[in-house]
Formats: sequence, structure tokens, C-alpha cells
Amino acid sequence: MSKIFDELKVYLERGDALSEAQRIFEWDSATLAPKLADENTARVVGILSDMYFKTYVNEDVKKCLEELAKPEELDKLTPAEKAQVKELRRLVSDLEKLPPEEYREFSELVARAMGIWEEARENDDYGKFAPVLEKIIEFQKKFAGYRMDPEKHSCLYDVLLDEYESGFTVEKLDEFFEVIRSELVPFIKEVVEKAASVDKSYNEKHYDVDKQRELSHMLAEYVGFDFDRGVMAESAHPFTTNFHNKDVRITNHFYENNLESAIFSVIHESGHALYEMQVADEFTQTLVGEGTSMGMHESQSRFFENIVGRNEQFWKPLYGKLTDMFPEQLASVSLEQFILGSNKPVPGPIRTEADELTYALHILVRYEIEKMIFNNEVGVDELPKVWKEKYEEYLGITPTNDAEGILQDVHWCGGDFGYFPSYALGSAVAAQIYYQMQKVLPFDECLEQGKLEPIRAYLKEHIHRFGKSKNTNEILRDMMGEEFNPEYYVKYLKEKYTKLFR
Amino acid sequence: MSKIFDELKVYLERGDALSEAQRIFEWDSATLAPKLADENTARVVGILSDMYFKTYVNEDVKKCLEELAKPEELDKLTPAEKAQVKELRRLVSDLEKLPPEEYREFSELVARAMGIWEEARENDDYGKFAPVLEKIIEFQKKFAGYRMDPEKHSCLYDVLLDEYESGFTVEKLDEFFEVIRSELVPFIKEVVEKAASVDKSYNEKHYDVDKQRELSHMLAEYVGFDFDRGVMAESAHPFTTNFHNKDVRITNHFYENNLESAIFSVIHESGHALYEMQVADEFTQTLVGEGTSMGMHESQSRFFENIVGRNEQFWKPLYGKLTDMFPEQLASVSLEQFILGSNKPVPGPIRTEADELTYALHILVRYEIEKMIFNNEVGVDELPKVWKEKYEEYLGITPTNDAEGILQDVHWCGGDFGYFPSYALGSAVAAQIYYQMQKVLPFDECLEQGKLEPIRAYLKEHIHRFGKSKNTNEILRDMMGEEFNPEYYVKYLKEKYTKLFR
Repeated sequence: MSKIFDELKVYLERGDALSEAQRIFEWDSATLAPKLADENTARVVGILSDMYFKTYVNEDVKKCLEELAKPEELDKLTPAEKAQVKELRRLVSDLEKLPPEEYREFSELVARAMGIWEEARENDDYGKFAPVLEKIIEFQKKFAGYRMDPEKHSCLYDVLLDEYESGFTVEKLDEFFEVIRSELVPFIKEVVEKAASVDKSYNEKHYDVDKQRELSHMLAEYVGFDFDRGVMAESAHPFTTNFHNKDVRITNHFYENNLESAIFSVIHESGHALYEMQVADEFTQTLVGEGTSMGMHESQSRFFENIVGRNEQFWKPLYGKLTDMFPEQLASVSLEQFILGSNKPVPGPIRTEADELTYALHILVRYEIEKMIFNNEVGVDELPKVWKEKYEEYLGITPTNDAEGILQDVHWCGGDFGYFPSYALGSAVAAQIYYQMQKVLPFDECLEQGKLEPIRAYLKEHIHRFGKSKNTNEILRDMMGEEFNPEYYVKYLKEKYTKLFR
Repeated sequence: MSKIFDELKVYLERGDALSEAQRIFEWDSATLAPKLADENTARVVGILSDMYFKTYVNEDVKKCLEELAKPEELDKLTPAEKAQVKELRRLVSDLEKLPPEEYREFSELVARAMGIWEEARENDDYGKFAPVLEKIIEFQKKFAGYRMDPEKHSCLYDVLLDEYESGFTVEKLDEFFEVIRSELVPFIKEVVEKAASVDKSYNEKHYDVDKQRELSHMLAEYVGFDFDRGVMAESAHPFTTNFHNKDVRITNHFYENNLESAIFSVIHESGHALYEMQVADEFTQTLVGEGTSMGMHESQSRFFENIVGRNEQFWKPLYGKLTDMFPEQLASVSLEQFILGSNKPVPGPIRTEADELTYALHILVRYEIEKMIFNNEVGVDELPKVWKEKYEEYLGITPTNDAEGILQDVHWCGGDFGYFPSYALGSAVAAQIYYQMQKVLPFDECLEQGKLEPIRAYLKEHIHRFGKSKNTNEILRDMMGEEFNPEYYVKYLKEKYTKLFR
């Protein structure tokens, strides 16, 4: 028992409550809140974020942390408490570099930006979003400047990357994306050509939205989303959020002429949700009560979306149900054709609708643009043009408008620059986990028999339950004796796609 | 410009943000949150309520209030600021009498109680709810004890009543209910007999729930609920909540075999919502930014439900739409028959389903039981029995089980003892407003022509816009030169029902 930690606990509890409160407003704004509420609600979110800031940045907390730097005090803590203190130290050191008024102003701006982005996207009106985006970028440049640590960061963008996946700098990511560029870009071109003749016109038939909703519910449940501890709703951009391990929420979106979108979005978000639902009770509602990093989070979502969800074995027990739901559209489509279709690489404008293979190229585009933004190499007004050029260069297509171009993603309007690389890292980590998992459990058999429990249990045991108490490389090392290694990703994609499209 | 008020403003803003945060969790728990979330979320609500408490009860706020007691300081404030200070004084004086730990414990208890009540009600299992109810009552007795002011309160129940409608004590309410008992009880008996032959079997036909949803939306919009500034959802018990004047939310519930329930619930809640939507911008998100009292709030909801909604003129432009939606069920029902049916007094077990006339008897039952509880004249285990006896005495019926007896209302599980009399007061205030309104605008004509705007504008001008900056009697006095007077209620009911059922 540590008196110091007891003192700290009051602040930790408040910080968690304020963070949950901000998240519920965010969830509500994206799924339900009325059109005209934004301004006033943003004010509230700004005030809550100010309180959050001051809950962690103050003399009391500082003193406690100083006391807990002494070995004799630290020794009194349980491992879970130690993990919280470590995370608190990181958080305070991040926050205290920011002027509180600017932090509040930024939180308010971001809370307001969501509605503006949604409207801009709906009306394909980049001009409406640009001034807000400009302000958000200004804030993030300033914040990154405050936080920059010359020992860890060689540029502003490094600071942002560090936030989502600690230790992954531009230098490391350049290497990673270089592997993708050199090894995958030519391979993808090859597969795209080979797969061109695969007919997936079934996907653009008319699919009743109510039935898609029902299907989403069924699929979420099938992969393990527990509706007694979670909620599914709808939003412009599918996302996952969580208040604690007994309240985890996902959204989906539906298009009448795109079945795949609903299917793979819901499996993706369910992967995120499983991570949060399986965090240990001792960690939930604490500073280490969530997924450890965005890279690790995306590894879970993309593991389920692609390695599980776009797998023939997965669909063997399920495909009959799908064709029963949509007999007109799918009766004449064999399982084999459905799997080829679901994996067919088709360079398109939209990231969230991309197949597994071309997906990495969407991230490459965003990575390069974000680097340019934070190196002051591009202005906000030039972004749509640069976006189009990059899509031409890497995907060989030109988005027809900004709604399906630069306005498609929610991230920037939330201030989340540096997040996108997590998707590519996540895909790579997922492949690495996949090879390890195959060594210890009959992966294909599990899918084929519709028994996903051993897979979930493995992920819980080695990843989920730890929350943030272990970082990505610690998790990987303890799981398989090896840190992050992108070679698995290349190997996985080459094996899978060579087999699918000979 | 007052420096003191500027200092205070930081606390006022935080208090509002924390209050909105608690309300969004409450809304979410009642409409959406997953089954197993309750415990963990209640913890968060407990922490937020503790922060709320401490935001208002502290030395800084106390000092500011002392300064603002000086005339020269008070003079620097705008009227809106003065109103906030006045309300803050009342709130602080209420809160500071409670031990902070007990306040937090109570808030947590109440946040948890909702789920328990819902389950108990669903399974007709009073035993499951009784221990929680017992704890809630204990807290409220303790709290009332702390707050009791011998100059204003002659018993514990007075303290609770004072919270919902300032100045309305047991003594005054006994008088009010005596009027109801002596003047209305015999009259109601008479009308019930005369109306017995009215056929309203149409109401128990099968009504598709999706269509009822659509109808609710249409009716809410028709009476003026602005869906750009509001949301409609579903919950076990219909209710209204608001975050600010641009985000006001109502719920409804649907029964396959009861059309009236959906119709009059949604009109009732829309009445509440209009009040909150029409609070002036200068007041919203401040301590005086909501309806002034529960009695005044219920006057608005019951004004719309009964005086507007159960009025033949109101349905003239609408009834065709209703019969178009439900031709099978309503084609052979004339507007006249529908109005007679909607107003037919039928003593039944459920308050929210009651007609306008017998409604007062449901309140009478609850008023007498609450008085007994706070006079220590009845134990929690005896409540179901007492409930049934009172229903036999006043309504001549016996609820067949606790789900349609003592478990029917949400109020007690939220700790809201002393609230029910507001419904009866509200009905009486509504009648008083109605007589005044008829003097200044062509009420029937407005309804008949489907033009509700002048009615809403009148309510906004004389009641809504002021929020809490004027109390009930001030509002009535400024509107019609007379304070609360229950005689209008008796007059209104006698006139209306004598005309309907001769």
C-alpha cells in the first residue's frame, strides 16, 4: 500500500472520468447529436479538456511523481500501479509542454471540426473545410514544436508519429515504406493485372440496407463482439470507441450498392472492439486500460478484417447464411468466386474500401503528404492537387472529386496527423502475429469449424489483457521472441496473393 | 464588467460542463448503453458528481459570493449575471449542507439504480428493486435532514418538495389536493359513468411499431420540435433531457396494442422540449439556462398533451393523415369518436397512460405515499401493498402486479421524491395559462388552421425565454397579474368534460 499512490488516485480517477466524458460527447456527435448542437457542445468539450489538462498538470501530481521516483516508494506499488505511474509520467511530460489555453482552444476547435468536415464531405466542398484544417495544422505544428525532444525527434513529424507508435520515427518509417515501395509496389502491379479478369460485379448489385444492418450485427457477434458489453451504431466514417471494457462501441456505414464495404468494415471495427473488451479488469478505467498503441490496435482490426475475414476458411461455415440473406444477388456466386472477389486488388480512390493489397498504397500517399505538411513543403490550398498527383503516381487513378479525395478521412479533422502510418504498421504486425499463431494453434481449422474462441483467447492472453501496460515491442518479444519485423508482411502478402491469383 | 464575476465564471463554466456530462451519461444509459456497462459507468458518474460538488462548494466560490453580496459589487452585474449569482447562492447553500462523500455515493447509487429498476420492472420483481429503493430513501431522508430549515420546512417531505417547486410545502399541497379531492373526485366519478359507453376499442387494435415511430416524428415536428436542435430515441419510460438550447432530447416508447400511448407521450415530451429549445441564448449553458421549476415544466408538457393534443381543433387538420397511416384500424372511426375516446376517463393502473381527468388521482396516490415514506409511516416492504390499497381507494381498481403498480415510474430510482406533485401543479398551471392565452390570441383558430407558431411564440415570450431567471409565480404574475391559482384547473376540467360528456 502506497500513500502517495492513494493521493494520486484521486487525480487518476478524475482524469479517467473526464476522458470518458469527452469520448461520449465525441461518440454522440458522430452518431446522433443534432446538426446545430456542434458549437455549444464543443464549448463543453473544451472545458472538459481544460479540466483534464489541469487534473494531470499541477503541483500535487508533480510532487507525487517526484516521490514515486524514489526506489523505496516505487517498490510499494503493485505492477499495475507501476504501469499507471509510468504512463502518467509520459502523459504529464507531454501535456505540461503545452500552454493550457492553447490546449483548450485546440480541443474546442477539434470538437467543432467534425461537423464542418461532415458537411464539407457531403457537399464536396473542400473550401469549407480548408480554413479549419489550416488552424488544426497550425496547432499541431506549434504543439509538436513544444514537445520536440532533439534526442528522440529529428523533425516535427517525428513528434506526431511518436504519439501513436512510440519510437517509430520518419527514419524508421522511411525504411519501412521503402520495403513496401521496392518489394510490394511492383508485386501489386503484377497481381492487379493477373486478377483483372475476376468478376466481382455481384458486389455492386442492390443490397437492402436493413438487411446489411442485420448482417453486420450477425458478423460482429460471430467474430466475438459481445452486445452485452457493446453497442453498434452508424456514422459517416466507421470507428471504434470505448469507455471501459464493458462498454465498447463500433459504428458502420452502409451503401446500397456495396456489400463488401459493410462486411469488412464491421469485421475491422470488431477487431478493435475485441482488443478493448478483453483488457483486464485491473487495468480498465485506468491510464493503461486501453490498447497499447495505434499500430497494435490496427494490427487487431486488420488481422480480423483481412487475415480472418478475407479468408476462405472463415466463410466456409458462413457463406450459406450470406447467400440465404441475399439469394438474388449471390445465389450464382460460388464461395471461391466470392473469396477471389473479396481479395481482388482494384486500385480505387477510397482507403476504407480498399482491398488488402492496394491498401498499403493509400497509406503511402498519406504518409508522404503528412511529411510534406510538417516540413512546410505544401500549403493547405495545394493539398487537393497533391493528393490527386500522389493517387495518380501510386494507384494509377485520379479521384473525380475532393469528397472521394482529400475529404474522405476523418483523421485530420480530429487533429490526428501521424496516425495513418499505424494502419500500415498494423497490417505488418498482424502478419507477424499470424505466423506465430499458426505455430501454436490450428488456425485454418478453427475458422473452418466456426470456432473463433481459441483465436480470441490467444490474442487476449498475449496482447489484449495487458492494455497499455506493455508496449508493442514488449508484447511481440514476449509472444514470439522477436520485435517488429516488416519481412513477415511482405512474405504474407506474397504467399497469399501468389496462391490466389497465379 | 465585474472582476469577481469573471473569477466565478471559471467555476460556473465547469459546473455546467460537468452537469452536461452527467446528463449525457444518463441519457445514454436510458437509451443505448449495453447491459453490463452500468457498474463501471456509475463509477464515472460518481466521480463527475464529486467534481461538480467541489466546483461549487469551495473557498474561492464562497469568497466570490461574499463579495457579490455587497451592493456596489452586485451593481456591476448584468441582469443575466445577477440571476446566475442568485441561483448559485441557492445551489451552494443546498450542496454545502451535504457531506461530499455521501453526495458522491448517492450519485453512484442512482446511476446504478436505473438498470436495476429496468430489470425489476421487466420481470415484475419488486424484491430486486426494494433494497436499492431502501438505500435511496435513506439517503434522501438524511439529505433532507441536513437541508431542513425550520423557517421554511415543517417536515422532511417539505424539503424535497421545495426542490422541485420552491415554496410549495405539504401545507400548501394539502390544500391543493383537498381542492382536487373535494371538487374533482366526485366530478370524475360522474364523468366516468357518463363516458362509460364511449367505444374506444380502436385504440387496442394492432398498430405497427415502425409506423408509430414515423407518426411520433411527424407529431413532434408538427407541434414544433426542431430536429436540427433535437433528437428522439426510445426508452422504458419516456423522458426529456437537454444539454443546451440547441440539443434537446426526447424519448418515446411503443406498444403494439396502444396507439394513444405513443401519440400523447410524444406530444407531452415535445412540450417539455419546446420549453428548453426556447430558452434565450444568453441563459443557455448557465445555471439559469433551464426551465424554472418542475411544476412549470410539467405545465408546458401537459399543456401540449392535453389542452392542445386532446383537442378536437388540433386534430382537424391532422386526423386525415392519421387515418391514412392506419386505415384498417381507424377508417371507420370518426374524428368525433376519436376525440371522445382520447378524452374518455378510464381509471387504469398506469399513470403515463392515464386520461387527463383521472391523471390527478394517480398523483394523489403518489403524494400520499411519499408523505407516508418521509413521515416514517411505511416501510419499503409494505409499499406494494399500500400502493394497491390507494389505487383501490381512489381509482377503484387493483393493479394486477407490481410492474404495473409500484414499479411503473422511473422517478424514485433517480431519487426524485417530491417530483410527482409537480405533475398536478403543472396541469393546474397549464389551465391557468390557457385562460390567459385565450384572451390574447385566437387559440382554437390557430389549432384548426394548423398554425401553432403564435402559441409557441406566446409561450416563448412569457415563459420559455426566461429559463430559471424568473420563478413560477413571477412568470404568472408578469403574464396575467395573478399568482398560482388552482381554481382555473377545476374550472377548466369541469367546462371541458361537461361539454364532452353531457
